Amino acid sequence: MASIIGKFGVTSGKSFKLENYRTDDPGSMEKKEALADLADFQTELKEYQERLYAENSQSLLIILQAMDAAGKDSAIEHVMSGVNPQGCQVFSFKQPTSNDYEHDFLWRHYKALPERGRIGIHNRSHYEYVLVCKVHPEFNLSERIPGYRNVSDFDDHFWEDRYESIRQFEAHLHRNGTKIIKFFLHVSKEEQKKRFLDRIEDKYKNWKFSASDVEERSHWAEYMNAYEDAIAATATPASPWYIIPADKKWFARYAVGKIIVETLAKMEPEFPKLPEDQKNKLKTYRQKLTKE
Amino acid sequence: MASIIGKFGVTSGKSFKLENYRTDDPGSMEKKEALADLADFQTELKEYQERLYAENSQSLLIILQAMDAAGKDSAIEHVMSGVNPQGCQVFSFKQPTSNDYEHDFLWRHYKALPERGRIGIHNRSHYEYVLVCKVHPEFNLSERIPGYRNVSDFDDHFWEDRYESIRQFEAHLHRNGTKIIKFFLHVSKEEQKKRFLDRIEDKYKNWKFSASDVEERSHWAEYMNAYEDAIAATATPASPWYIIPADKKWFARYAVGKIIVETLAKMEPEFPKLPEDQKNKLKTYRQKLTKE
Repeated sequence: MASIIGKFGVTSGKSFKLENYRTDDPGSMEKKEALADLADFQTELKEYQERLYAENSQSLLIILQAMDAAGKDSAIEHVMSGVNPQGCQVFSFKQPTSNDYEHDFLWRHYKALPERGRIGIHNRSHYEYVLVCKVHPEFNLSERIPGYRNVSDFDDHFWEDRYESIRQFEAHLHRNGTKIIKFFLHVSKEEQKKRFLDRIEDKYKNWKFSASDVEERSHWAEYMNAYEDAIAATATPASPWYIIPADKKWFARYAVGKIIVETLAKMEPEFPKLPEDQKNKLKTYRQKLTKE
Repeated sequence: MASIIGKFGVTSGKSFKLENYRTDDPGSMEKKEALADLADFQTELKEYQERLYAENSQSLLIILQAMDAAGKDSAIEHVMSGVNPQGCQVFSFKQPTSNDYEHDFLWRHYKALPERGRIGIHNRSHYEYVLVCKVHPEFNLSERIPGYRNVSDFDDHFWEDRYESIRQFEAHLHRNGTKIIKFFLHVSKEEQKKRFLDRIEDKYKNWKFSASDVEERSHWAEYMNAYEDAIAATATPASPWYIIPADKKWFARYAVGKIIVETLAKMEPEFPKLPEDQKNKLKTYRQKLTKE
């Protein structure tokens, strides 16, 4: 099953084309089998999380990006249910606030990074600044970056700067112990339409529906181009992207769970070993206590 | 007087040697003249700060580094008195807390960055991690970076990584509108001794005295090497270092004030111009108000 990492993983932008990745590709996997495996992943995840927390040195940042209704929230719910909430922090990033706009685009995401020994999940992330902001460059104006006063100022050079900042941000975090994995839940335009219609029909889901989501569908091709460019510019062996076929929710959850567990296995978190002097101190404390 | 920027500024690490910079070098400046100029700087500073705040796009980060008793606090007090506190934030960084140690070394400094239109002063900064931490590498262990478990692990490669992270951090901030200037208040070991003795004698100053400060004097040469390496590795045209002769407090304050004012002048902060459509809206509002 290590093949999933190889099949969907992107570790270099060279010759990356989104069109080479399908939105519906469960391979030989059956739904029943996937659900059973997903249950196993939850147990494994819990064990790794305990080690990670005890080790208190490495941390894992999981980034989820996708078009609306691709299943980010439900993937988090299904994959991460059961883990210790003290060791797992989820941040959902909406439109930046005016306070966020007082700072550079990485600032609010930096503040939300997972602490050592923790798993952090960013539901949407700093990548929005090279995705939605690339489709709607007028959003960049709110950042008030010196020299960028008009939409026409956001040229190739500007985007190269953004990618460079993201690459260096992630490289720095990697050097300092944060493993980053980035998921793109790859859903088709047709499947999104179906899910939107479902949302409208379903009284338990229609609160999720927003008119602006439908409007964004007219920019589908631009979004796909922005994803392709962003993934190509920021996929590295240290902080890879995974392009998850997301037309089948059960498969997307399975694949995300599998990749998280495999990533933690490679991180090899270990329970700390008490140094000799600390052991001797413990002996002293014990003697003290027994003498009370 | 632009010569001060040229004389004390370091914009490249090439052939940088701290020994080429004196701790007592007021040039042709007289104390009386310097104090008069410093008063003028305060007025100019206030004007530039108002423009910067109105422009709401660029920001200025002033970093102060020095050995103990070199005059950082008093420089801030004398140079920045009179500016609008709403537009100026000072952060003094002491020993990292356990919460800080849950993150990479830049994290707590990132959180303290100045907002757009503001001047931020960092009294000590992220440079401590390549200064005091280089002299006392055992401090790095508290960061619990994966793969670095013993003091002997902190090799040249480790320090190169740190410098690279700092350079990229500052380059990113520069690209996004934060001008960074870094001051090293360069005091002699002899002058520090005098000031320590003064602190002990002076009942209004002796609270500032700490036994550990005296102990650190035994590492003087190591500190100077760490400063030399850090400055050489991180001096750039965009984010220069200034090596300020600090044996004379009045001169250090003058030089710091002069460089801050010159830097702001080069940033050319401008009052914003209202676009035509906004002007038309204002007309509408005015009509509405007059009709009330």
